[in-house]
Amino acid sequence: MPGTVLDGVAERLPAAVREALLAPLVDHHCHGVRRDDLDRDAFEIAMTEAGTPAPPGATHFDTPLGLAIRRWCAPVLGLPPHAAPDDYLARRAELGAAEANRRLLTAAGVAAFLVDTGLDDAGLLSAAEMAAACGAQARKIVRLERVEQRVVAGGPDAAAYADRLADELAAATADAVGIKSIAAYRHGLDLDPARPSRREVVAAAGRRLADPGGRLADPVLLRHLLWAGVDAVRERGLPLQFHCGFGDTDVVLHRADPALLTGFIRAVAPCGVPVVLLHCYPYHRQAAYLAAVYPHVYADVGLALTHTAAGSPAVLGELLELAPFHKQMYSSDCYGLAEACHLGALYHRRGLAAALAARIEAGEWSAADAARIARMIGSENARRVYRL
Amino acid sequence: MPGTVLDGVAERLPAAVREALLAPLVDHHCHGVRRDDLDRDAFEIAMTEAGTPAPPGATHFDTPLGLAIRRWCAPVLGLPPHAAPDDYLARRAELGAAEANRRLLTAAGVAAFLVDTGLDDAGLLSAAEMAAACGAQARKIVRLERVEQRVVAGGPDAAAYADRLADELAAATADAVGIKSIAAYRHGLDLDPARPSRREVVAAAGRRLADPGGRLADPVLLRHLLWAGVDAVRERGLPLQFHCGFGDTDVVLHRADPALLTGFIRAVAPCGVPVVLLHCYPYHRQAAYLAAVYPHVYADVGLALTHTAAGSPAVLGELLELAPFHKQMYSSDCYGLAEACHLGALYHRRGLAAALAARIEAGEWSAADAARIARMIGSENARRVYRL
Amino acid sequence: MPGTVLDGVAERLPAAVREALLAPLVDHHCHGVRRDDLDRDAFEIAMTEAGTPAPPGATHFDTPLGLAIRRWCAPVLGLPPHAAPDDYLARRAELGAAEANRRLLTAAGVAAFLVDTGLDDAGLLSAAEMAAACGAQARKIVRLERVEQRVVAGGPDAAAYADRLADELAAATADAVGIKSIAAYRHGLDLDPARPSRREVVAAAGRRLADPGGRLADPVLLRHLLWAGVDAVRERGLPLQFHCGFGDTDVVLHRADPALLTGFIRAVAPCGVPVVLLHCYPYHRQAAYLAAVYPHVYADVGLALTHTAAGSPAVLGELLELAPFHKQMYSSDCYGLAEACHLGALYHRRGLAAALAARIEAGEWSAADAARIARMIGSENARRVYRL
Repeated sequence: MPGTVLDGVAERLPAAVREALLAPLVDHHCHGVRRDDLDRDAFEIAMTEAGTPAPPGATHFDTPLGLAIRRWCAPVLGLPPHAAPDDYLARRAELGAAEANRRLLTAAGVAAFLVDTGLDDAGLLSAAEMAAACGAQARKIVRLERVEQRVVAGGPDAAAYADRLADELAAATADAVGIKSIAAYRHGLDLDPARPSRREVVAAAGRRLADPGGRLADPVLLRHLLWAGVDAVRERGLPLQFHCGFGDTDVVLHRADPALLTGFIRAVAPCGVPVVLLHCYPYHRQAAYLAAVYPHVYADVGLALTHTAAGSPAVLGELLELAPFHKQMYSSDCYGLAEACHLGALYHRRGLAAALAARIEAGEWSAADAARIARMIGSENARRVYRL
Repeated sequence: MPGTVLDGVAERLPAAVREALLAPLVDHHCHGVRRDDLDRDAFEIAMTEAGTPAPPGATHFDTPLGLAIRRWCAPVLGLPPHAAPDDYLARRAELGAAEANRRLLTAAGVAAFLVDTGLDDAGLLSAAEMAAACGAQARKIVRLERVEQRVVAGGPDAAAYADRLADELAAATADAVGIKSIAAYRHGLDLDPARPSRREVVAAAGRRLADPGGRLADPVLLRHLLWAGVDAVRERGLPLQFHCGFGDTDVVLHRADPALLTGFIRAVAPCGVPVVLLHCYPYHRQAAYLAAVYPHVYADVGLALTHTAAGSPAVLGELLELAPFHKQMYSSDCYGLAEACHLGALYHRRGLAAALAARIEAGEWSAADAARIARMIGSENARRVYRL
Repeated sequence: MPGTVLDGVAERLPAAVREALLAPLVDHHCHGVRRDDLDRDAFEIAMTEAGTPAPPGATHFDTPLGLAIRRWCAPVLGLPPHAAPDDYLARRAELGAAEANRRLLTAAGVAAFLVDTGLDDAGLLSAAEMAAACGAQARKIVRLERVEQRVVAGGPDAAAYADRLADELAAATADAVGIKSIAAYRHGLDLDPARPSRREVVAAAGRRLADPGGRLADPVLLRHLLWAGVDAVRERGLPLQFHCGFGDTDVVLHRADPALLTGFIRAVAPCGVPVVLLHCYPYHRQAAYLAAVYPHVYADVGLALTHTAAGSPAVLGELLELAPFHKQMYSSDCYGLAEACHLGALYHRRGLAAALAARIEAGEWSAADAARIARMIGSENARRVYRL
C-alpha cells in the first residue's frame, strides 16, 4: 500500500528520500476509531467537525476530505479511486468495521500511536486495540479536563479539590507519555498565564462543585489545571499538548491562536516541560514562530492536513517556512474514522514529498538533508520528546 | 470572449470541466458600474479602495489590478494586451462608457447579478440597467444601514424608531433576495451578539436621532439593526451578507475578521437565515472554517480576487482548503468600474481552473467531480441559497 | 557571484528582467555585522531569533536558514554547496571575519545600506564600515528608543524630559534618513494612537526616571516618543519605520500585527511622514492592505525572507498580492551575520524572479512591466522615500 502513497511525486525523489518518507511514522496525537459499522448518516457526522448533518440537499462528502476518502481510501477497501459515496459505504459494510479499520490503519504505516484517552466512549478502539489492529505500538496521553471531571464526579469539598486533582493526575499520568489541554475548547487560550493562588482555586472549586455535571470552563480552574498538570509531569519532563486552532464548534477560532499562549510558554519554560502545539490551522505560522524562538515549543498541523486534503501541501509548506526541523512532528488527530488515520499519514507524506522534491529540484537542499529531515519530522522528534 | 479567459490553462482541463468553468455565473454580490465617462483621475480613484490619488509620481495602475486591467480588459475594448494606461483610457473614452460597460459586463459571462442597492448614487447603473447592459438577470440585496438612514432621515421619535425600522425593512425587502450588513465598516464585527433590549434601543435611538446626519456607528443600534434585518427575512429564509475583511479605509482590518462573528453565527442559527461572509481577505481561511462547521454559513473571496489579480489563485486556493463545496460562492463585488466585474469573473474562472487542473493532474479529483464543483461554486449554490 | 543567484530561474526570464533583478539593491533596513570571528556556539546564537542554543541534541543549522547558509553562503567562501556546518565554520575562520564579511556583503549586491544604529555594540560594523566592506553607500536610521535611553541616562527631571528628548531627537536625526520604532518589542502595537498630554508625559517620565536602568515600556512614553519622533522629522518628511511581526522573544506576536497601527496611521497622515512596516510576517497581508489604502504607508518582508529561506517565495508572493508596486521595498534586516545580508538579497531576488517568471509565463505581465517593477521594489522606491 505505501507504494501508491507517493503516486505522482515519487519519481521526483531520490531513493533515500522516498524511503525516509515511507518509513513508519509516530502519530503523536490521535484518538480511537469506531469499532462499529457506520451507516451513511453516522459516517457523515463522523467525517466533519460540524457535529451536524450537511444542509438539506448537500453532503459532507462534498468537502476536500470527502473527495479524499473516495480517492485514497476506496482502493484500500478494494474499490477503484473516486468511488461514489454509497458504493464506498456499501463496501465498507461488506468488509465490516474491523476489517476496514485493519486495512486503513495498516495502510497508514504507523509505528506508534500516542492516544488521547480522554474521550470516554466504549465505541472507540482503546489505545491497545488501535495498536493491535495494525501491529503498531500505543502509548497514552492524558487529557487534563477528563481527569478533572473525574475528580469533580467524586464530590470532594472545595478545600480538597486541589489535592484530589493532584492525586488523580499523578495516578493518571503514571503510565502516560504526555498530557493534553483542551482549554481552547473551554475558554480560549487567552488565559492569564500565572498559577492561581490557593485561595482563588478554593473559591472557584466551590462554584464548580455546585454544578458537578457542568463542563470545566472557569478560567481560574483551567489555569490551575494546566499548572497541576505541569506539576504532575515536570519531574519526568513529559510534554504538554495544547489544542490550537480549528476543531469543532466549541472553539472560538481567534481565541485558539497559539500566539495567545506566549505568556504561558514563557512562564512554563523553567519547568522542563515541552509544549506541543497541535493542529494550529490557520495559525500554524504563529505556531512555527513560537517553535522557532522558544526551545521547549513544538508544533504540528495534524487534523488540518486531513481536512484540507488536496490543498494540504500548502498548509504543510507554511509550517516548513519557519519551524525548525527538530521541532515539527506528525499527527493525524484521527477520531472515529480510520480513514482519517490513513489520510493524515498520506497527506503528511505527500505534502512533505512535494516540499522536499521542490527544494531538491531548486538546488536548495541536498537529498541527504531532505531524507534526514523527513525522518526527524516523521518519527525521530516524537521519539525524543515523548521518550518512547 | 470566454474563449480567451482560460488561456494557458484550458489545455490542462477535460472538456466537461472547461464547460463548467465557462458556464454563466451568478454574481451574488456586486454594485452598479458608473454610467459616465471617466477621465484618468476619476478612473484611478475608482480602481482603488484607498479613496485617494496615488502618491506623487506614482499611479494606481502600478498595482496588481492595474496590470490586470491592461492585460485582460484592453482586448475586450479592442486593444492589444498590456496597453498603456493612457491608451486604454483613450480607447475607453472613444467607445463611450455605455459601450465599454456593455463589452466588459458581457465578457464577464454572468447570468444574474445580485446588486447591493445601498449606494445612493445616480451615477451608477441600477440593478435593472446592469442586467440590461449584458442580457443578465438582476435581483436586489438590501443594505441594512441604508434603510436605517432613511428611517432616521424621517425624524421619528426615539420610541418609534424600532417600529419604523421594522416597517421600512419589511417594505425594502419585499422584492429583495437578501440583506447585507456593513457593521464591519461602522464599528467592527466584535459586536455583542445578543439582541439588545427595547430599553437600550430607545436610549441609543435618542442619541442617534439627535444627530440625524451622522453615520450609524452605535453598537447597540448596529446589533438591533442586524436582528431587525433577521426578523424581516427569517420567514422567507433569505440570507444575511456581512462585509468581512479588506475594503476601504473605513475598515479596521483586524476588527473585520469573520471569526469575530462566531457568537452571532451561533445565536442566529435557529432563525433559518443563512449567513454569507463576503470578501474575507486576509481572513478567508477563518471564513472557510466557519462555513465548514456551521450549516448556515457560506463564504466567498469576492473583491479579493479582483484586487490580487495575478496573485489570486493562491487566495482562491486557500478558500478551497477547508470550505465545503456547497458553501462557496462567486461574487465580483464590482463597484463603479465594469472592469472589476469582468476581472472578478475572469480570476474566479482562472483560479478555479488552476486549482482543478492541479487536483485532476495529481489524481486527487475526477474530472466529473471537478466539473460538478465548478458549477456548484459558480452558480448553483447561489441559486439555492438566494432562491433564485 | 550575482551570476549564480538566479540559478534555476534565470532561463525563464527575459534579459531585461534578469538585469533588473541583478541590479544593486537598496537595503533600507539593516544592522551591522560582527567584526570578530565566531565559534560554533556564537554562530548558532547569531543565526536564530531565539537568543538561546538549540535544545540538547539539536542545532540551529537544522532550520531553513541553516540549510540556506550551507547552500548559498558556502560557495561564496569557496566551499561546495551543502557543506557541513563544521566545515563551513572552519572555512569561515580560515578566511577570517573581515574577508568573510567582505565576500558575503559584496555578494549581496547592495548599493546602499540604511543602518539602524540603535544597537550599541562595538562588535558590530558601523554604517561606514558596512559600506566600506563592499563599496556601498551607507546612511543612518535613528532608533527612537535608543535616543530615549540616552536622555534618561542623562538624568533630567521629569519636567525637562520632553524638551531633552526633543533636543536629542533633533540632534540624532540631523544626518539620518529615517527613524525607527520598536514599540512592538516594548509594549505591542496596540497603543492608543493619540499624542499624550504634557501632564501625562511628565507623570510617566517621573516614574521612568525613578528606574533609569529599565527599558522603556510605558505606553504613554512610547506614544510620546512616536510623536516626538514625528515632530523631529516631519519638516523633512523622513520616514518612520515600525518593527512589525516576528522577531526575537521580546515580541508577543499577535500584538505586533501591523493592523493594530491603523489608528496611528490615520492620525499621522497629515504630517507628511511616510510609515514603513518592517518584516510583518505572518501579518504581511495585513501590511499589504495598509500599503494599498493609505498613501503614506510602505511595507517589506525583510527578515522573513532570510529565515523562511527555501520557503520564502510564498511569503514574497503574498506581499505581492495586494501591495502596490510603488509601496514595496527591500530589506535584509541582517544583524550580526553577513550571511543574513547575502541571503536576504538572494531570496529577494530569487522569490521575485519566480513571481515575475510565473506572471510573464501566464501572460499576466509584460516583460517590460516586470523589469520596471523589479527596479521599483529593489531600489527606486527606497531612493524616493528616503530621499537618497
